[in-house]
Amino acid sequence: MPKKNAFYAQSGGVTAVINASACGVIETARKHRGKIGKVLAGRNGIIGALREELIDTSKESSKAIHGLMTTPSGAFGSCRHKMKSLEENRAEYERLIEVFAAHDIGYFFYNGGGDSADTCLKVSQLSESMGYPLQAIHVPKTIDNDLPLTDNCPGFGSVAKYVAISTREAALDVASMCESSTKVFILEVMGRHAGWIAAASGLAAEKEGDAPHIILFPEIAFNREKFLKRVQSTVKKYGYCVVVASEGAQYKDGTFLSESGLRDAFGHAQLGGLAPMLAQMIKDELGYKYHWAVADYLQRAARHIASQTDLDQAYAVGEAAVEMALAGKNSVMPAIQRGTGKRYSWKIVEAPLDKVANVEKMMPRSYISRDGFNITDAARDYLEPLIQGEAYPGYRRGMPEYVTLKNQLVPKRLKTRFKL
Amino acid sequence: MPKKNAFYAQSGGVTAVINASACGVIETARKHRGKIGKVLAGRNGIIGALREELIDTSKESSKAIHGLMTTPSGAFGSCRHKMKSLEENRAEYERLIEVFAAHDIGYFFYNGGGDSADTCLKVSQLSESMGYPLQAIHVPKTIDNDLPLTDNCPGFGSVAKYVAISTREAALDVASMCESSTKVFILEVMGRHAGWIAAASGLAAEKEGDAPHIILFPEIAFNREKFLKRVQSTVKKYGYCVVVASEGAQYKDGTFLSESGLRDAFGHAQLGGLAPMLAQMIKDELGYKYHWAVADYLQRAARHIASQTDLDQAYAVGEAAVEMALAGKNSVMPAIQRGTGKRYSWKIVEAPLDKVANVEKMMPRSYISRDGFNITDAARDYLEPLIQGEAYPGYRRGMPEYVTLKNQLVPKRLKTRFKL
Repeated sequence: MPKKNAFYAQSGGVTAVINASACGVIETARKHRGKIGKVLAGRNGIIGALREELIDTSKESSKAIHGLMTTPSGAFGSCRHKMKSLEENRAEYERLIEVFAAHDIGYFFYNGGGDSADTCLKVSQLSESMGYPLQAIHVPKTIDNDLPLTDNCPGFGSVAKYVAISTREAALDVASMCESSTKVFILEVMGRHAGWIAAASGLAAEKEGDAPHIILFPEIAFNREKFLKRVQSTVKKYGYCVVVASEGAQYKDGTFLSESGLRDAFGHAQLGGLAPMLAQMIKDELGYKYHWAVADYLQRAARHIASQTDLDQAYAVGEAAVEMALAGKNSVMPAIQRGTGKRYSWKIVEAPLDKVANVEKMMPRSYISRDGFNITDAARDYLEPLIQGEAYPGYRRGMPEYVTLKNQLVPKRLKTRFKL
Repeated sequence: MPKKNAFYAQSGGVTAVINASACGVIETARKHRGKIGKVLAGRNGIIGALREELIDTSKESSKAIHGLMTTPSGAFGSCRHKMKSLEENRAEYERLIEVFAAHDIGYFFYNGGGDSADTCLKVSQLSESMGYPLQAIHVPKTIDNDLPLTDNCPGFGSVAKYVAISTREAALDVASMCESSTKVFILEVMGRHAGWIAAASGLAAEKEGDAPHIILFPEIAFNREKFLKRVQSTVKKYGYCVVVASEGAQYKDGTFLSESGLRDAFGHAQLGGLAPMLAQMIKDELGYKYHWAVADYLQRAARHIASQTDLDQAYAVGEAAVEMALAGKNSVMPAIQRGTGKRYSWKIVEAPLDKVANVEKMMPRSYISRDGFNITDAARDYLEPLIQGEAYPGYRRGMPEYVTLKNQLVPKRLKTRFKL
């Protein structure tokens, strides 16, 4: 059997360590040159495959590829293009196969979250339905930590670490000045559907009274009165109050708090901005001086303080994906399995992709305290191992050394163009 | 001459390294036990002196004091209490002297920015006008970097490093997804009066086209049309645009952009939020998908990625303050002097306090590019040395180990209470 090339693409929101998975895929494929040809990466994700814009990773030096370990974001570009179902848009799938065939691609490594797992599953099924031999392996990645069958998702641990540290640091700032200045500080973090990231801020607290004093989860319906009462009692008890709010915080009817009515001078609804909205609520009702921060992309790009555990796991799923491909697997995902011992351990296992796609893992209610405002010991036990170790990048002239790849495209072999 | 105690207080907004100055003061004083008695720290800054709430730092172990080197924020508490002039509020100054006399305090170390330098100067003059022997030394600290007679201010270098790194990281994120997602990213940073912090973001760029593409300085009047035009041309040229906006960005008439008209559902003016305001402007006029972040306290508390140069200098000014006191000085400030060689060097020199107080050092116009949207090479040459070195704290269980002091108060000796 002549050796086939591999296709690798990054999908959806990028993370501090998704490039470590790319590194795992490429370095492992290079170890098996007898079986795998080139690794061709989609320029801007799956769009690159559809447009036949394939990056030739063989043009990159070993050093550059290894530099991916310390470089955040998506080195080949990512995208938010969701492939529809085979029935709805068969043309897109046929185009994929056309491009893959033109470039001798036999392996499909798709590095993403829930939507990508679904796409990967569909692509894996093409092998049969369209008579084209292709092994599709999903490489898990999502800061949302919501993939099933894996203990956690690469990318999440580093956001968790960043948010926990930032919460502890900002809380020290507020605590030291609350006597005469800011009394309430609000940090808005990501998490549209699940409160995993907000929950991680709970690791900032070591003892009773430590920040964060209030965490707002999407899982717990927001109750304005209860919230304000808790802010007030916290300020009275500790002198200040730190709130960490998930961007997905919502009312009982499912309306996001961030959609609740800020308008600019022209009457346009203001998009986003949960933190300033909560701050205004507190100012209006309780009169406290406040400050707020919105971490936004800073949190998921913060490679400078990535979790070593997260980095190791991100590399391992990339490596395992190639090993699974070499073992003849199709339609699987390397998953992280936590050991059962008291001391944290993990290994990579194989998860069937049809059990991963379209299943969202929610945060267990047992991870949220009874009053809905904090995390439990169970959550702490789950979260803490994921932020262990500081995977510092190298620095040059005071700044982290992040690599930029050449990203040279292979010549097109098709005359056809595809309109997205 | 019987040995006198020393008073130390932290004033104004705290920083990632102000505690390193405290450490410099206390460790140096401990080396001279024959000449300086206890270092008593004001609980919550100067308020602690007025209330006779004096923290006995001799109760802290050497290890705890050295832990201040790696702990952000103000370990003894800080405050925003500005002392009025001697004429306006003589009672406050008399109270200070009353407390100092009751606790044998002969040295006054005041760790703060411009306002504090002014207070420190006034206190230094008490020695003569009230016949109480007191040596007052100002220990410089401000993220605003606006004190005169010193090349830079401790606290600034670490914010600069954090902002430069965060800009580079977030920019990589945006760049990797701009093809199908966010095209404009806005990071709002501190700097009400001067653009030093915003300028530091310019260090994120290494070559033409690198982010930040637009920096908004308080020094340059905001021109809506010119700004939008630049955003558009940047997106057209590079596919995305990263804007770093100083919170002090303002119109020609001095109105802050952040005050320009956002209202909530009840018609209340919304406070703060320059970044969301700019985002909305871009969305309305250009239609680009955007994201924005507001770093707020995260930037000045980010001890996890403090600049080693900044940390060294923060310690050095604390150390030098005590040495100056021992040399009999009064009404001075240890200042940082940059060497003239090609390779960056610095040493501590003595600055007269009456030349420091009430003088604000502005950013030179030559540090801002002609078009007003970026920094020049001169700015880069000035800023780059200040962010050199990564002064990492220790970690335990994945989180930075920040010390908490006992902060035990000395028994009060006065019957009188002072009403602030």
